[in-house]
Amino acid sequence: MKIREMGITIGKLNTGEKNCITDVPGVMVGHVTLDYPLNETGTDYVCTGVTAILPHSGNMFKEKVTAASCVLNGFGKTTGLVQVNELGVLESPIMLTNTFGVPAVTQGTIEYMLEENPEIGDTTGTINIVVGECNDSYLNSIRKFPVKPEHAIEAINKASNHQAEEGAVGAGKGMVCFGYKGGIGSSSRVVSGYTVGCMVLSNFGRKEDFRGFQYETKGGLSETADGSIIIVLATDAPLSDRQLKRVAKRCGIGLGRTGSHFSHGSGDIVIAFSNAHKIPHFSDETAETRTQLREDHPIMNQLFAAAAEAAEEAILNSLTQAVTTHGREGHVVEAICLRKEGN
Amino acid sequence: MKIREMGITIGKLNTGEKNCITDVPGVMVGHVTLDYPLNETGTDYVCTGVTAILPHSGNMFKEKVTAASCVLNGFGKTTGLVQVNELGVLESPIMLTNTFGVPAVTQGTIEYMLEENPEIGDTTGTINIVVGECNDSYLNSIRKFPVKPEHAIEAINKASNHQAEEGAVGAGKGMVCFGYKGGIGSSSRVVSGYTVGCMVLSNFGRKEDFRGFQYETKGGLSETADGSIIIVLATDAPLSDRQLKRVAKRCGIGLGRTGSHFSHGSGDIVIAFSNAHKIPHFSDETAETRTQLREDHPIMNQLFAAAAEAAEEAILNSLTQAVTTHGREGHVVEAICLRKEGN
Amino acid sequence: MKIREMGITIGKLNTGEKNCITDVPGVMVGHVTLDYPLNETGTDYVCTGVTAILPHSGNMFKEKVTAASCVLNGFGKTTGLVQVNELGVLESPIMLTNTFGVPAVTQGTIEYMLEENPEIGDTTGTINIVVGECNDSYLNSIRKFPVKPEHAIEAINKASNHQAEEGAVGAGKGMVCFGYKGGIGSSSRVVSGYTVGCMVLSNFGRKEDFRGFQYETKGGLSETADGSIIIVLATDAPLSDRQLKRVAKRCGIGLGRTGSHFSHGSGDIVIAFSNAHKIPHFSDETAETRTQLREDHPIMNQLFAAAAEAAEEAILNSLTQAVTTHGREGHVVEAICLRKEGN
Amino acid sequence: MKIREMGITIGKLNTGEKNCITDVPGVMVGHVTLDYPLNETGTDYVCTGVTAILPHSGNMFKEKVTAASCVLNGFGKTTGLVQVNELGVLESPIMLTNTFGVPAVTQGTIEYMLEENPEIGDTTGTINIVVGECNDSYLNSIRKFPVKPEHAIEAINKASNHQAEEGAVGAGKGMVCFGYKGGIGSSSRVVSGYTVGCMVLSNFGRKEDFRGFQYETKGGLSETADGSIIIVLATDAPLSDRQLKRVAKRCGIGLGRTGSHFSHGSGDIVIAFSNAHKIPHFSDETAETRTQLREDHPIMNQLFAAAAEAAEEAILNSLTQAVTTHGREGHVVEAICLRKEGN
Repeated sequence: MKIREMGITIGKLNTGEKNCITDVPGVMVGHVTLDYPLNETGTDYVCTGVTAILPHSGNMFKEKVTAASCVLNGFGKTTGLVQVNELGVLESPIMLTNTFGVPAVTQGTIEYMLEENPEIGDTTGTINIVVGECNDSYLNSIRKFPVKPEHAIEAINKASNHQAEEGAVGAGKGMVCFGYKGGIGSSSRVVSGYTVGCMVLSNFGRKEDFRGFQYETKGGLSETADGSIIIVLATDAPLSDRQLKRVAKRCGIGLGRTGSHFSHGSGDIVIAFSNAHKIPHFSDETAETRTQLREDHPIMNQLFAAAAEAAEEAILNSLTQAVTTHGREGHVVEAICLRKEGN
Repeated sequence: MKIREMGITIGKLNTGEKNCITDVPGVMVGHVTLDYPLNETGTDYVCTGVTAILPHSGNMFKEKVTAASCVLNGFGKTTGLVQVNELGVLESPIMLTNTFGVPAVTQGTIEYMLEENPEIGDTTGTINIVVGECNDSYLNSIRKFPVKPEHAIEAINKASNHQAEEGAVGAGKGMVCFGYKGGIGSSSRVVSGYTVGCMVLSNFGRKEDFRGFQYETKGGLSETADGSIIIVLATDAPLSDRQLKRVAKRCGIGLGRTGSHFSHGSGDIVIAFSNAHKIPHFSDETAETRTQLREDHPIMNQLFAAAAEAAEEAILNSLTQAVTTHGREGHVVEAICLRKEGN
Repeated sequence: MKIREMGITIGKLNTGEKNCITDVPGVMVGHVTLDYPLNETGTDYVCTGVTAILPHSGNMFKEKVTAASCVLNGFGKTTGLVQVNELGVLESPIMLTNTFGVPAVTQGTIEYMLEENPEIGDTTGTINIVVGECNDSYLNSIRKFPVKPEHAIEAINKASNHQAEEGAVGAGKGMVCFGYKGGIGSSSRVVSGYTVGCMVLSNFGRKEDFRGFQYETKGGLSETADGSIIIVLATDAPLSDRQLKRVAKRCGIGLGRTGSHFSHGSGDIVIAFSNAHKIPHFSDETAETRTQLREDHPIMNQLFAAAAEAAEEAILNSLTQAVTTHGREGHVVEAICLRKEGN
Repeated sequence: MKIREMGITIGKLNTGEKNCITDVPGVMVGHVTLDYPLNETGTDYVCTGVTAILPHSGNMFKEKVTAASCVLNGFGKTTGLVQVNELGVLESPIMLTNTFGVPAVTQGTIEYMLEENPEIGDTTGTINIVVGECNDSYLNSIRKFPVKPEHAIEAINKASNHQAEEGAVGAGKGMVCFGYKGGIGSSSRVVSGYTVGCMVLSNFGRKEDFRGFQYETKGGLSETADGSIIIVLATDAPLSDRQLKRVAKRCGIGLGRTGSHFSHGSGDIVIAFSNAHKIPHFSDETAETRTQLREDHPIMNQLFAAAAEAAEEAILNSLTQAVTTHGREGHVVEAICLRKEGN
């Protein structure tokens, strides 16, 4: 259940129709979930997956979108940010998986992009793949490398603009948040006709740090190691990469409001894109013209608020949408049971 | 009144004895407040000041301390950060004033430091001065440049390790926060024997964005422009400059929890120092030995929480300690009247 | 004499007409030079000045230009970069002076801008002033604060688009470079119809590190402390702030080619702007349209080369244009006497 | 042949015994070179490899070393820098390969580290792998993914502290530099008893931009796309991560002196480590003590010069050590034939 269905509202801005990152026109999400024992006793267990977030439905390499990143805490293995930071563009889907699944998912995503673009690595340059990750080793036998390149390709192929599944699905299958089952969560905001969508992979936080409303304490893990969170922010607002980085940074406010202190061992990373403007890979032009919001227009502050609100709500949705999940070594992580304060 | 006296507690960690930045051994604070009309009708009015935060009571140039900064939003005119970032040290007091007071305060602080150190600019190099600022032009005739170099010198000379005055004093005299009177606020936390102290100069936020507990709406300004906040974080925990930067960044969590979204026109800047280790300006040594916390020790996460809690509480104290203040053009900014939720 | 007049050519690109930063249409430069004894024996001596670089001839606050900075080594006291980095715009002239002249020059520049813009600090926000500096204390009695606010105003008022004076003038009056007299130097490049202009304030380098062509060793200072260099890069090429930062970074290549290793005690800072697009301070628009070069067009690499070449040549011009200069304590810094290799 | 054997000297500092990165005590290098046709006509051809640089001979995860990075130009796919930047440590070998070999090399390196450390991903956290890359697609059929995980493991296992092979070996097998055959190059400097070693993977530059000494023009490629360079800097000087980042940045000076302007499409990235101090992964201590050089000691500037000189010389060695190489589509890249000016 989404927290809105429980009567809980975060912030003041309106959500999009699906309250999901796919409210941003063109954005598509696909999940592949892996869930099976590796041996009879189940001490080795596969409880993980892959999630693909596509900035638009066209050729992502030939039509790049504006992008930016913000590293809130850098204890993480996300790839692709060096080039995003230099050029301000995204030319691949954003892929999410477990920490040791990054090579396989990168491999699969390159293969997908090469299949679509025979020029890459032949008559034109290479391609930059962005993969975010969290460590799901409490539930998942991460050392066994269950994620394969084909899972990445499958997640991309399954992507649609429907309301995305949340909770213990895709890359979120094995994640733990505030001692409860976390994983994939999403939400959106609408600001002056522009949509801001957020999807998180939540895997952070100690039970006692959770803030904001009451919850049942039964079953939550009392001792959890530092985790991570990947926050993907999408918008159709016309923003330059610098402006987008400013908006992305505000996701940290939403994260802080859930109770996180960006803990030492956490890879807390925001990856943002705007698909308002597509930058062609091939062009004969010398210059290009881009529209961007005036920086001092009130919409800018509203987008800041939207990023904070959407990130907070996406995190909470990742908890309330998740189901109790069994994994390796008999580990169980229970779903949270939230109550609004005073109820 | 401090919010603790109102029964309001922020976070879980214990405060220091004075719940003030001066709980950090050696740290001293001095204020100079300016408050007088410039003409008979009072349309031009001086409502501003200077605050000096000294990292220790010795010679600050000859015994430098570890320092770091974090720019949450850079619409601000803070000086000195280029060198702090490169070298990881602070060699002057941290000065706070209004935006157009920065040159005078820098000038006065240089003069103070030259007086103490005849070698500077003669037989040794120059000195880096750190000055933070907010724009108090709603109450203060900022275009008249009422702050003079001697006010900076006076603030430094008045510095003591007593509980610092808060609210509409020193640099905080003319500041406005969430539509109410803001300014100087402070608080502290104690973690495993180390103290983290925070002092803010608060001048940001729209009334409707204030979060956390109820307040009387009478008198608050409904329309306030984007402001700023300078957050000074002090500690005696032995941290490297990189570690200190990590801690400083968490002050943004506390700021976000008060309701801020780091608005576009706000200079939201954290300046942090640790006086655990003093780096001599003159030395015949080739190398030096420093002690620093192990990064993965739980204390590190506690320091992160301490920074977030102390920043949030310092901001709230800047509100509850402030008194209704009159300034230029007949402008009045009222003190907030807070109530704990449910009371 | 400019090095080109000596038959020395740097790089492959063509210079502009004046081989000066003022080749960039609209850019203007003004110098105020101070040169007089403070006592009868001349042990105290004023040997310093102020240089103003205006991005265009209009109202710089009301018509901002795109800007970026690059800190090659941050042992420096340059002000204004926090806001330049956040917003990507410049709204004031770029001022150069000695280290302890920064407060006076900032003060004077604010006063100039307030005079031109009665709204600042009254009905609109404040203004961000950019001041770069080097330490001229070998020749100049820097502790006596000879630079006053009126010198900044005078430098701005004297600015013109003529070929700028170079060498021991303006802020360059007391500077030392590679043990010889340095100071102000300038040069330019033309790339596909766009002009890249550079002006440096050179005050760095040990005599033995100078590279590139032969020079007479008579009179050069054998022992010089670490100095600094401020590099101002101007262009009329339409670049985003991110692109401009990329171009600015390449000035470090030119600096390195003169023999610098960005020494520890040096504030080696690049401040760049493009006046191709003016951003109005006041506007009723929600969005704006900007033209920028396609990032992968060969012009981009030519602009990179232009920045490296222009910075190198401006530094060399600052040496060959400078005259032997007398200062405090009887100090004399001789002009370099360069010869092309093989001559 | 190394350039020193040709009578060419770069800079003023002395080299280490082997003039190689392995002069830094403990540092080891291993190469795996792949060179075979994929079809009868050789239109598809494998011309690539893997190079492993080990910071010391012990357990790299359990004994981490201080590390830093510097992105000169970020058009590259290097992985692992987010965590290096946050924590200032390296906990794996630094691996080099072709752009599309990154996933396989990351996978193989994780497998190697997991084999050595059964706790990773089970009872302790995960591990951060650093992989640098350049695009060798002119000679190598990069789309065929010839590099496999076992090649990474083999390169690590082959690592020794002998003088490393240079030129068209390991990851350098298919690289092109200034239109000639480039690849792996190395050099070292000794400063006050400390060693600075550099190894590059060179794959950048247009023929006409090459500087510094004469070369035969026969055979060089006149049209080369933007490439990349990975510069690995190793030292046993006791430096903090911030100090190390300062030293790393100076490698860009050496790169610029060879003729590069850090071209748009180039991933020009420096990865640096100091093995003077080993940080244990497991420890019961709260704090640790580290020795670091005093920042203002002249050794610091010498280390800056050492980084610039070693990077420049390593690049030149990558050219003069390389042999003419045949690859896919009948492409041939000839070895450069250098002559000292005047000879």
